[in-house]
Amino acid sequence: MRIDVLSLFPSMFTGVLGESILKKAQEKEAVVFNVVNFRDYADNKHQTVDDYPYGGGAGMVLKPQPIFDAVADLKTHSDNARVILLCPQGERYTQKKAEELAKEEHLIFICGHYEGYDERIREHVVTDEISIGDYVLTGGELGAMVVIDSVVRLLPDVLGNKTSALHDSHSTGLLEHPQYTRPADFRGIKVPDILLSGDHKKIDEWRERESLKRTFMRRPDMLKMLELNDKQRKWIEEFKKEGGLKKGESLL
Amino acid sequence: MRIDVLSLFPSMFTGVLGESILKKAQEKEAVVFNVVNFRDYADNKHQTVDDYPYGGGAGMVLKPQPIFDAVADLKTHSDNARVILLCPQGERYTQKKAEELAKEEHLIFICGHYEGYDERIREHVVTDEISIGDYVLTGGELGAMVVIDSVVRLLPDVLGNKTSALHDSHSTGLLEHPQYTRPADFRGIKVPDILLSGDHKKIDEWRERESLKRTFMRRPDMLKMLELNDKQRKWIEEFKKEGGLKKGESLL
Repeated sequence: MRIDVLSLFPSMFTGVLGESILKKAQEKEAVVFNVVNFRDYADNKHQTVDDYPYGGGAGMVLKPQPIFDAVADLKTHSDNARVILLCPQGERYTQKKAEELAKEEHLIFICGHYEGYDERIREHVVTDEISIGDYVLTGGELGAMVVIDSVVRLLPDVLGNKTSALHDSHSTGLLEHPQYTRPADFRGIKVPDILLSGDHKKIDEWRERESLKRTFMRRPDMLKMLELNDKQRKWIEEFKKEGGLKKGESLL
Repeated sequence: MRIDVLSLFPSMFTGVLGESILKKAQEKEAVVFNVVNFRDYADNKHQTVDDYPYGGGAGMVLKPQPIFDAVADLKTHSDNARVILLCPQGERYTQKKAEELAKEEHLIFICGHYEGYDERIREHVVTDEISIGDYVLTGGELGAMVVIDSVVRLLPDVLGNKTSALHDSHSTGLLEHPQYTRPADFRGIKVPDILLSGDHKKIDEWRERESLKRTFMRRPDMLKMLELNDKQRKWIEEFKKEGGLKKGESLL
């Protein structure tokens, strides 16, 4: 996969692209990154990339020319690039979209700053508008990093342990069950007995139930997307009867 | 505001904290950042921070000791720190939460990697569990950067232009209207006449309607949170009649 990023702050990417999974993915040649300052494509004397909005208002708007020309140039590297604009008006990003993008060979990310993009960029250059969530960020860079990380870790051979990607929260449609590691007694706080029992059938069932419980307590909206089986429906009736919520589980 | 970050990959943060608004916020002394490798707090000979999960399964789990001790140490810098865990099981992050956190004086972020955190960390150290969205990331670092960016830009004096923060998408409850800048005719693609008219009353109304239209087309879920006035309800009836969607507006 080839990933191009258009940004006015290319050095924001060095730390993130140079560590952990994204570093390994490049070493394994699963992906090539290219971060470009689209100011270099501005054809005016002062390399201006923004201008006042027509109709007035606060803030500056990114001009069409530098981005049109930068994308046209980068598109020469492949036959069918996806051109992704990070913006609050975009489609809300999900794991399903990450899986879709992981099948592509060439992604181009456009990261804006300032008040917004000239609408003609959206209409004539961009194939996908993505928002990573309902909050306001200074620019598109963090959104691009989030999408890149979530996509690249799905590429073949990037994650060492394949089962690890499968069992993550949001891959199964349920939040993950609690996890514990040594020591069994840490400063008086103990690991649940069942996890020390060695009875793997019971442990699996405990985990399945805790995973469902956590999702029920914290993210009931996620349960609506699933077809529950009889056992899961019975458990949910039990959760409703139990009522009392533990710390951190009161988000219903 | 003081912000501490616990991470196994501190250098991931250098690019993001050293550019744009976050850089300016430090220069203006609105915020102090301190990124710490919590491996330094591991009290075992090999500075191990993770271990196998009790009950079996793939992946590694972060041990309680290094994080308990690191947070205890950092908490000495203030009387009431919020301790934020980035994880898929957390509360979904929103602009409202950003506004809440922006009122605090001390935030401590815990960024995990691997399969997860020992549950005792959630129960005894953490005050807030946050998820930035329903997708799987390699670690908590990008989530922490997203929360930090969205919070710091709300601190007094950080953004030069105060109106800019107010009109952003997700601050008003509606997506932003289209924006255009010069030239009025870019390679044959024109700016809507109304924006060139100089009639500011009409321009404001056009923008209000386009903002509502975009939200109706792309994020009808956001409209449910608002109390619409008569004019807005009339416009929505018009959008329903218009039917035909433009490119990128078919996300209903």
